[in-house]
Parts: sequence; structure tokens; C-alpha cells
Amino acid sequence: MDFWCMFTLAGAADHGLPKGTVSMEMMRATVFRGVGDIAVEEVPRPHAGVGEAVIRVTLTTICGTDLHIVRGEYPVRKGLVIGHEPVGVIVELGLGVTGYAVGDRVLVGAITPCGQCRACLSGHLSQCGHGDGYEAIGGWRFGNTINGAQAEYLLVPSAQANLAKIPDGLTDEQAVLLADIASTGIGGAEAAPVRIGDAVVVFAQGPIGLCATAGARLQGAALVIGVDGDDHRLAMARRMGADVALDYRAVDVVAEVRRLTGGGADVAIEALGTPLTFENSLRCLRPGGTLSSLGVYSGKLQLPGDAFAAGLGDHRIVTTLCPGGKERMRRLLSLVAGGRFDPTPLITHRFSLADIQQGYELFGSRADGVLKVAIKP
Amino acid sequence: MDFWCMFTLAGAADHGLPKGTVSMEMMRATVFRGVGDIAVEEVPRPHAGVGEAVIRVTLTTICGTDLHIVRGEYPVRKGLVIGHEPVGVIVELGLGVTGYAVGDRVLVGAITPCGQCRACLSGHLSQCGHGDGYEAIGGWRFGNTINGAQAEYLLVPSAQANLAKIPDGLTDEQAVLLADIASTGIGGAEAAPVRIGDAVVVFAQGPIGLCATAGARLQGAALVIGVDGDDHRLAMARRMGADVALDYRAVDVVAEVRRLTGGGADVAIEALGTPLTFENSLRCLRPGGTLSSLGVYSGKLQLPGDAFAAGLGDHRIVTTLCPGGKERMRRLLSLVAGGRFDPTPLITHRFSLADIQQGYELFGSRADGVLKVAIKP
Amino acid sequence: MDFWCMFTLAGAADHGLPKGTVSMEMMRATVFRGVGDIAVEEVPRPHAGVGEAVIRVTLTTICGTDLHIVRGEYPVRKGLVIGHEPVGVIVELGLGVTGYAVGDRVLVGAITPCGQCRACLSGHLSQCGHGDGYEAIGGWRFGNTINGAQAEYLLVPSAQANLAKIPDGLTDEQAVLLADIASTGIGGAEAAPVRIGDAVVVFAQGPIGLCATAGARLQGAALVIGVDGDDHRLAMARRMGADVALDYRAVDVVAEVRRLTGGGADVAIEALGTPLTFENSLRCLRPGGTLSSLGVYSGKLQLPGDAFAAGLGDHRIVTTLCPGGKERMRRLLSLVAGGRFDPTPLITHRFSLADIQQGYELFGSRADGVLKVAIKP
Amino acid sequence: MDFWCMFTLAGAADHGLPKGTVSMEMMRATVFRGVGDIAVEEVPRPHAGVGEAVIRVTLTTICGTDLHIVRGEYPVRKGLVIGHEPVGVIVELGLGVTGYAVGDRVLVGAITPCGQCRACLSGHLSQCGHGDGYEAIGGWRFGNTINGAQAEYLLVPSAQANLAKIPDGLTDEQAVLLADIASTGIGGAEAAPVRIGDAVVVFAQGPIGLCATAGARLQGAALVIGVDGDDHRLAMARRMGADVALDYRAVDVVAEVRRLTGGGADVAIEALGTPLTFENSLRCLRPGGTLSSLGVYSGKLQLPGDAFAAGLGDHRIVTTLCPGGKERMRRLLSLVAGGRFDPTPLITHRFSLADIQQGYELFGSRADGVLKVAIKP
Repeated sequence: MDFWCMFTLAGAADHGLPKGTVSMEMMRATVFRGVGDIAVEEVPRPHAGVGEAVIRVTLTTICGTDLHIVRGEYPVRKGLVIGHEPVGVIVELGLGVTGYAVGDRVLVGAITPCGQCRACLSGHLSQCGHGDGYEAIGGWRFGNTINGAQAEYLLVPSAQANLAKIPDGLTDEQAVLLADIASTGIGGAEAAPVRIGDAVVVFAQGPIGLCATAGARLQGAALVIGVDGDDHRLAMARRMGADVALDYRAVDVVAEVRRLTGGGADVAIEALGTPLTFENSLRCLRPGGTLSSLGVYSGKLQLPGDAFAAGLGDHRIVTTLCPGGKERMRRLLSLVAGGRFDPTPLITHRFSLADIQQGYELFGSRADGVLKVAIKP
Repeated sequence: MDFWCMFTLAGAADHGLPKGTVSMEMMRATVFRGVGDIAVEEVPRPHAGVGEAVIRVTLTTICGTDLHIVRGEYPVRKGLVIGHEPVGVIVELGLGVTGYAVGDRVLVGAITPCGQCRACLSGHLSQCGHGDGYEAIGGWRFGNTINGAQAEYLLVPSAQANLAKIPDGLTDEQAVLLADIASTGIGGAEAAPVRIGDAVVVFAQGPIGLCATAGARLQGAALVIGVDGDDHRLAMARRMGADVALDYRAVDVVAEVRRLTGGGADVAIEALGTPLTFENSLRCLRPGGTLSSLGVYSGKLQLPGDAFAAGLGDHRIVTTLCPGGKERMRRLLSLVAGGRFDPTPLITHRFSLADIQQGYELFGSRADGVLKVAIKP
Repeated sequence: MDFWCMFTLAGAADHGLPKGTVSMEMMRATVFRGVGDIAVEEVPRPHAGVGEAVIRVTLTTICGTDLHIVRGEYPVRKGLVIGHEPVGVIVELGLGVTGYAVGDRVLVGAITPCGQCRACLSGHLSQCGHGDGYEAIGGWRFGNTINGAQAEYLLVPSAQANLAKIPDGLTDEQAVLLADIASTGIGGAEAAPVRIGDAVVVFAQGPIGLCATAGARLQGAALVIGVDGDDHRLAMARRMGADVALDYRAVDVVAEVRRLTGGGADVAIEALGTPLTFENSLRCLRPGGTLSSLGVYSGKLQLPGDAFAAGLGDHRIVTTLCPGGKERMRRLLSLVAGGRFDPTPLITHRFSLADIQQGYELFGSRADGVLKVAIKP
Repeated sequence: MDFWCMFTLAGAADHGLPKGTVSMEMMRATVFRGVGDIAVEEVPRPHAGVGEAVIRVTLTTICGTDLHIVRGEYPVRKGLVIGHEPVGVIVELGLGVTGYAVGDRVLVGAITPCGQCRACLSGHLSQCGHGDGYEAIGGWRFGNTINGAQAEYLLVPSAQANLAKIPDGLTDEQAVLLADIASTGIGGAEAAPVRIGDAVVVFAQGPIGLCATAGARLQGAALVIGVDGDDHRLAMARRMGADVALDYRAVDVVAEVRRLTGGGADVAIEALGTPLTFENSLRCLRPGGTLSSLGVYSGKLQLPGDAFAAGLGDHRIVTTLCPGGKERMRRLLSLVAGGRFDPTPLITHRFSLADIQQGYELFGSRADGVLKVAIKP
């Protein structure tokens, strides 16, 4: 009981920041100190308040979004611990969290919905309003509005909705990419939705695009075309399920997709986030086709009149922010356990938490065929 | 019973409410004492644990399901407080519930999902597993597995997901029927779904069927046929939106529906719970039509081969347990506030909590044109 | 032109109609002679080939798209008879058309799908490929790629799929607007789809926007906000079902919609076709909301980063070209017959075919509170 | 031209029955002569009327439904040519059919929708009303209401909607099973719909059940459980994609499915047509799960109260009659061409048309591990 009270009081005040009188436990974590400046520092170890949990992180990774943060392209507060893709072991459970035990091995999604706000109760878990209404991108908290996963310990909010037990027999490396890129990429195929027999083109074969390629195939597409301009990624596209890997350096992609599909793809998935790939995704569609957008865009996008048929082509554009919550993670884990999807080829490099800056540098440079970098605290 | 007291005391202590001595606060509540035996008794007043709230009930009502309980047709434990349709005022908020204040006027649905289990995170709020997996009918707790609403005070579980603030200007009587019968009846039209221009038949024009009639119209049906054998209810069917009210005492309903719809209804809504109305619902459908089932059935239902086209008619059967949660209630409240739906004509009689047994007798007898009975604690 | 004559003569011969000598039957029709130049001329009367029908047009109307054609903003070939909204009486039935008789009174949609191509068999009737694949906007043929309805007689292609019998008791004026604007406007609400309890904003309250307003209400919206800057149209918005009519001359529409909806509309319907209304539709949405686009756009549209949440807001954009086919028309006719929707207030002026140029002038000028102009051949 | 007229006149009178004065061309076909009595006879060769085509059948097969017909369990008229799964070459095209040439190699679905009736225009192609309204099972014409495919030549109605060109490189054996069993079986997974990560059980691993097993996997199920009591079929279940093949002779299937799925399957597909498998399908479901029914049932089915949760479990039951039409066939052909699905292992035996009775005997006996029998005219 004392156990609960202590952590409850600590957690209730705020999440893992210095409490003063308590003998402060510390941990090592990747801290955003300003644009172009991150470092592994000693920071207070978090404790679980009501409805929360703390996990000891056993594996995490670096996301393209983390690069945006470091480069100052996506603003977060100074002092924030970044990272949002955690696998770990439960070390503390706050009041009101049931059905879990300290020691359980869990995966937590990058998006941590509360399950109890207007958005969540409407099924829009990624736009979670934390108990109240809708908040744009509100489901993404780790390494955005609260401390994140590139650390030894991680406070999980709305823990009841977000702790997914990892089946025995699955490794951390099999699980960690499900938190974000696999959920996002496969989600792009589901959101369209890709239907059995569809022809699908996926623009960009980075980590998310490769998972979208796999997702299109998982949903029953008869033809999956992956587009990129990097030899490593084109090779990986074929490995993840693309029937055709188109090199935009060598061919007119729109014309080639229209030719291969006999008049236009049923679904185009945008997995890069540039105006050009967005526009070309539209241009590849047959009338009535769907553009499923996964990219994060800066500035204004355009809908070219021709590709959009002046608004009369019965096109649909759907956007997806990484689906989260423990049920989503459970489903993705079951795909891996069932041998349907293997994300591990995407982990090309491994670093310790102490060496995470090397990981950022490599990941940012796109050198050495890097796709995803695993970080072991 | 002891269990409940302990639990609430523990929870209240955490919340810092004065518990002090064991001066038990009591309240009056409708207790199920055994088959055919209910009574208003003094029972301990509940207090809010973690994630819970307590409301002072200002209006409630009696449901057909309560009759089943009293008659022993649906088993609940002896000593349970029954009733599941509450309007009230918040008097206690447990730890972890945010965005509400004591004194807020709220509607709580008959179904109280946790929002954080596998079922809830999949959108199956009525099959809530309370933080874990799926539980059949698990979302229905009030007056079923925990104490219910025909009482002075009501403990609301998963309060963050279930307290819907009532807009100023709406009366308790405008709100109370939304908790169950309106959510269920309208839900029957949504689940089908009824589409603009559809022809819809609703079997039985009791409280839920009348709301299904209203719901079919709200969803854009071009023709709504209400079926019953009671003059009051047939008249009320027209008032709630039926274009045609068919008296099964006077006409061959299946033949008449097929004639009026030119070959079969697009959707048939079953709102009684008998094998005959279930089978006739199927018989009224065109090929490819949908039977939306709201009834609670005893024993085995049959799918007659002719009506079911030997399984080759592309028919669909969907079943709906009352949708709940605060967002559902918010939407229904907004319908009433917007003048789209007025449930108040369905409240035909009013009793105090002390006189609730008279209410049960009247409601059970179907005398005096009774539809719904309002109970004021 | 000769092509048509030959073809129809051949078809009519097969059908056993007296063709005899080449005494060409003529009719009066509205012919596009060049930009800014239309005239009622004598042209050959059409005859029904295989799978076709000819109707004597008893009522038609002028559409905004016709104005675009006359102004040269939408190119069609010189010599084309324009107009695409016909009510009439069958005078000829080609080979292979069954279940109809000469003399039947029918409504034909502006979109005339073949029902037998890849697009139609996939449910994309408006992108009909005429027996083969998909063709962008291919379902729109009348007054676009084949002769249209502002004439005494009209050849109906794929007649089996496109002749909708008009129920006795409905007037031509009750039916004629269903061919295009009602099908389009209501379709905008269905495509979103608007759900029971939604808050919906409709940008522009011209004929299509007014039908979208009616459609949002038919689908169960709890709050419908119509936006325009014309007093007549704002008044008509209220008459067609808007709860609030916002005058963009007087208020900041985006701010006001966000205020009225408590954070953003569930659905925004764009019914004008300008970049500004398109962008503002996005700006009015809550996260996860849907923009249902009905407008015909010139040039490039933009998706402003803020409104689009950088692609992470789970927004959806759906576009709808007027749904057509006889089943669509049957459903809309049943709505009118059932008293759910009355399009007749939108017909503000009436002209004979001979005076159609006056109709075009009035309609183009937006003078005198004109909404739709009925043309009686 | 004479060519067209001759056949048009012949076809217009009736379909392929003796015309008298014309020099009668004959063909060999499998004729139903009465219960238990079929024979390969000389019958008039059909000719193409308006909108029709004739194909020379190059491969067909025998369906379980054909057995029902021969055994008198499904009534058809005496003298009918039976069979409904054709691959062939176009030899005649009627008036109004465009985009095809004599000599084209085509697959025609077992279901031949017109595309132009109320049912087809609503997307219910299998309940086609032949130009008018809905007709239960109306899309199934071959070997049911018009002459079928176990013959040298086949008249294809609504040819424009039903001729699917076979890609070069696909053999007749790769195509023929797509006409019915693959479309039906895969359709069972789509109709549910099976979602990525679902656990699915398929009752019976006959030809349709095996295709349902493959379909569940194609749609992204994480766990597919095939149930049968025949060793050959259990082995084939694993080959077609089942993760687990349950032998009902050895285990309590319902208990085992509930154990393997951790509380119930998301989807159960019934592919046999008996009350027991129907009931057990329901019993295997989690709350909110879907029973996708493909079986053809005789007599009354029951919905057991427990499995159906008294109507309160948010269960759905969907039924699917084989989807047809040329676009459906095109999609299935593209699956095979893309290497996603290989139906050829299901063809276990081959006979000439002359020996078709041996094929019926073998197929009916279920001896020698027979699954499907290919018939070569």
C-alpha cells in the first residue's frame, strides 16, 4: 500500500520530474537540448501515478520524426527525453492498472490513447484528447509532449490501454518496429483500404514505405509496386513483397505505373511527405481510386487539377497517423508470431544508448544502407 | 455486499474524503430480493474509488430488462440494486477522473465501457472486458453485475469514459431515455445501416421499437413501417415517424410489407425478442437485405429456409446491444438539443422512488397506454 | 452527326419501327455553337439503337455546368445539344430494352452508367467506361459527349440501366432536380458519410449546396450550418434544413463554425468549387473529420499545412460526381414521394424551350433570387 | 451483317432451343433428364442474341451444387444442360457487345449479373433481377434457369458484363476454379471482412472451404484454423494456408478454437451447409465476431441462445452467394497471375466430356482424395 501511495503522490504531481524531498533515483536518457543538440544525460527516473506504469526499456529505435526534432523542423521543449518506440519490462504499476504484473514484457505503441475521450470513444485513437475532446495528433505523446523512450525507464500514460504483452518466443527486435513504422505502414494499406486483387503503388521505400509495401500484400493486393531511387531500398522493397521495384532515376514513374496497372492503380500510398510524391500518387490513380497518405508534410500541398479530375473523379484521400493502443500492438504481434510479417530485416544497425549519437548520425546520413537503428539501453 | 463497502471505503480513502468512524451513510434503493420480490431498502451509499464517480440520481426509469430480472427470466444476484438508466448530479469524483466538477449534471449510458480493454479499443464498447479482453455483454454492468440506478446514489465505473454533461436547457426527462432505449433503438437503424431512400419495417412498437422507428427516419429512410397490435402503440408509431402503422391483428404483415415495398424491405428491425417476429423480419426482406436485431431472445431462434434463401440470398443479420459511453450520450443529447428527436412523449407515467413498485406493476401490465415510467428519487 | 442517324436507323429497323423513306424527322434543341453562342435550332430527331431509348422531354433545367460550357470554361464540341437533366415520356425503345413501354413517364439521371464495365461493376457508376474499363467522369455523357436534354427529344444510352419510372402523383417539377443537383448534394452527405448526431457545415448555398444541406439533415446531422453571402440563399438554407445560416460577409466563418461545433465540424461539404472554400472546409474540421467535396475546381487546389495537420490529422477528403442510374433515381423519387425532401422551392423561374436564352441570362446573372430555372420543351 | 442478323433473330426468340427451319447445328452437352439421371446428349448449339455471346467451352468442372441437382435436392427443369463454371473461346458476339473479338479466351463467372437492374446497380450482383428489380439468387442462371457449361458451347447472357479475358500465360486449369469456388470461398473472407491480425476458423475444407482458408490468409488473418474430418482435406488445408488443421474426429473443435484464439475467433466461415457447422461457427466467435456463411442449407437453421448471447453479443451473420461479373473474374485472375493464389492443387482428377458421368460418380463418392474434377469438352 505504501508502495502505491508513494508513487501515486509522485506521479500525481507531475510525470517523473524532480520531487525534491524524495531521494532522487536517476537514469540515463537522450535529452533534446536545442536544435542540433542532443545528449545522453542523467535525469530523474519516473514513477507511476494513477493509471500509469513505468517500464525499463530493453530496446528502442530512432525514427525519422526524431531527426525532424533534432534538426528543429518539429518543435519540442528543451529538456525533453525523445524517442517513441519502446519495448521493455514493467517495473511499476500505478493505482487502477489491473491485469499486469511487474516483470511482464511489453510493447507500447508510439501512440498512447487514453481510450476514454471523445476521440478515442469514436475510434480516432491517434487524435486522443486525454479524457476530454479531440486534440490534433494528441495521441502522440512520447518524445513529443512527455518524456520518451530513448532512456533507461519510460513512464507509460493510460497504461491500461497501452501495455501489450509480448508473446513468449518473440524477440525484442521482432517487436520494436511494430510500435511505429509497422503500425503506420500497414495502417496505410488498411486505411485505403487495399482490397483483394488491387493494384497498389507505394511511393518511397524507407522504413514506413517498406512496411506499407508489406501491408498492401498482407491485405491481398495482386500487384504491389514500390518506388524509390536508392538501390538498397529497391532491393529491400522486393524482399518485403513488392512485385515491381521502380527506380525513379530510371523511369517515368507515373507513366510506368499507369502502364503496369492498365490505366491506374486502385490505391497509391504516399510514404515520404513531399509535394511531388503526393501529387504523383494522385496522378497514378484510376478514377475512383484512393490516395492513402502517411507522409508528414511541410508547407502547402497541391492537388493538381488533372490528377484530381477537377474534383469529379470520385477520388478519396485518407491520412493516417500511426495507430496505437494495446489491441493494435497485440494484432501486429500476432502477425509476427504467425509468420505473416517479419520486420527484422529492417534493423540494419545496432547501438547502445551511450552511443546513440552515432546512431543518429548514421540514420541521418542514410549511409551504409541504413534503414532502422536499434538502441539498447 | 461487504465487498462493495470495503471497496468503496478503500477508494474513498485514497481520495481523501472523510471516512473516519464507521458511521455508515445509507441511501434508499430498489433491491432485488428474489424472483418476484423487489423492495426499496436502506443500503450503504457508495463512494468513488480510483477512476470512479458517484452521482445523486435525479431521474431514472424502468426497463423491460428490469421486468425480466424481477420475473426471474434474467438472473442477477440477490441484494443487487437494479436499474440502468440514470440522470444525476456528480457528488464524488475518484482519483484520476479529470475535467468534471462536483455539481455537474450528467447522463450516464446503460452501458459503461472502460475504453481500455481489447473490446473497447476495437470499438465493441458493449462487449467491454474491463481492462482486459472481450466479455459477452460485459459493457452492461448497472443493475446486472454492479449496483444500479433505481436508487438515490449511483457509483459510476470508468467515470472518465461515461459521464456526459447535459447541455443547459435540456430537462431530465429529455435526457433519461437516451441512456438505453433511444441509444438502442436508434442504434438498430445505424447498425443496419439504414440508407437514404430505404424502406424499413420495425417489428414491435414498444419503447425500443418506437425509437427504432424514429431512428430509421433520422437515417433517411423513405418509408418506415411500424408493426404492432396495440392501438396506443400504433398511434405513437405514427407520432414517432412511421409512415404506415400495421396492425398485425388485422393484416398479414409479411404480405403487406412486401406489397408496400414492392418486393421486400431493405431493412427489417426486430425490437421485441420473439422467434415469430425474428422470422417475420427475415421474411419481409428483399434479397441482400439486412435484419437488424435488437430483441433479447430466450431459447433457440430459427432461420426459416425460405426466408433465408437457403443461405444464398446475401442477407445480413446484425445484432446490437445498446451503445454506451459519454460520446454516444453526447451525440444523442445533441439530437434532442437540435430538435431532431423528442423522446418525452414516451414518458407516460411518473412515480417517486418510494412508489416504484407501483411503477413496476403498471409497466408490467402494459395498462393505461404505458410506455415508459419516470422514477424520481 | 451522320453517324448518329445511321446508327439509329439501323437500330430502329431491328426494332420494327416504321423507318421507310429518308424523310428526316427534326426537333428543336439548344445547340452549343461556340463560346458565348448557343441557339435553339432544328436538328435531326434521334432514334433508339440497340439498348437505347428515346424520350420526349417534358421538363428540363439549366445547370451551372451548362454555364461553364457556354462560357468556354468547360470544352465541348460545337454542334452539341447541351443539358443533362431530363424528365420525359418514352417514345422509342431499342432492341434489348425490356420492362418498359412507350408512354412511360421517366426520370433519367445526369449520369448514365452502362452498368457493365469495370467501373460500374465496381460501384463507380460515375466513372463509367462504357462496357470496358474506367473513364474519368465517363458517366456524364448528356450534353458533354453526346446530345443532351435541352431539346424536344433525347436519346438515352444504356436505357435498361437509366430509365426510372416516375410514381403517379409526382409532378415533373418534383422530379427534374433529382437528375443532378439533388443527387449530387445529397450524395455529398452520404459520401462523407454524415452520421447521426454529426455537426456539418456546407460551404455555399447554391442549388447543390442547398441539397447538401437537406442531405446532411436527411442523414441525421444534429447541427447543420449553411454558409453563403447572399440573402436569398441564406434564407433558403434555413428553409432546406440549416439550423444556422452563416453570412460570410458578416462573420469569420471558420472561427464561428469552430465555436458552434465545440472544436470543429465532423463533416464539411464543399459545394462551390473555389480554392478558398475548399481550404476553409478543411479548416473547419475536427481531427479525424471528413471534407466531402462536390465542387468543380479550376487550377490547383491547396491543402494548407495547418488545416491538414501536416498530414497527421486522420482527415479524409472524398469527392463525389453526381450519382446516377435508375436505382439512384428511384430512391430519390421515393424520398420525394415520402415527403422527406421537397426540391420544388428551388425552382424559382420557368421558361419555354424557345425562350431558353432568357433562362440562361437570368441564371447566369444570379438576379431576382434565381436558383433553378425550369425549361419546358 | 447477315451473320449478326441470323443469330440475333435466333437468339431473340429463345436461347438455343430448336429453331426449326434453320439448319440445326448440334453439340454435345450434359443434360439433366430427371432425378439420378444425367447423360451426354446431342442438343442444339446456341447462338448469340442481342447482348449475348457464345463461347466454345475448353474447360469446365463439376460443383457440389450439380450433385444436389442430380440427386433431386435442388430442382431444375428436365432437359436442362447443367454446369456453371466455364472457360472458353468466344465464337459469336451478339448485337450490342463491344470490345471483344471472336477467338478471345475468356473466363465467365458462375453468376452472370446483368449490371442494369435494381439489384446490380445496388451492388448486389448475385441477386440480379435481369433488368428489373431484385430476384433471390437471380444471378445464378447457368445450369439453373438457362443451359449451362458442361457442354461444347455455352450461351453467355449479359455478355458485356460477364466476359473476362484471360491473361496470356494463365492456363485453363488456373482459371476454371475462379468461376465459382474461388470466388465464393475468397468472398467469404471478404464479406466478413477478415481484417489484418484476425483469428479465423473455417468449417469444412472441401473445395469452397479450402478457398475460404486461402482467402482468410489473403486478407491478412494472423491465424487460420481449418476444420474437417478427412485426412486428405486436412493436409490440403495446410497447403492452402491453414496454420492449424483441426480434425473434428479427434478434438472438441469449439473448445479448441476458443483455446487457440484466446477466447474466440474474430471470424468463423461456414463452408459446408449443415445446422451443426452453422451452430458451431457461432459458438467459436468472440463477442462482436462475425459468422460468414457460404453453405447451402436445407431446412431450418437454429441460432442457439448461448452462442448468440440472447441477441446481445453484437454478432453479425453475413451470407455470400458467389460474386460474379467480369470485374470479379479479372481480379481473381490477377491474383493467380501475381502468384498470390494457386487453385490448381484442387484439381485432382480429369475427364473428357464423354466420360463426365465417371467424374460425377467419383466426385459424389469423395473417393481417392477427390476435390475438383476438370472436364474437357
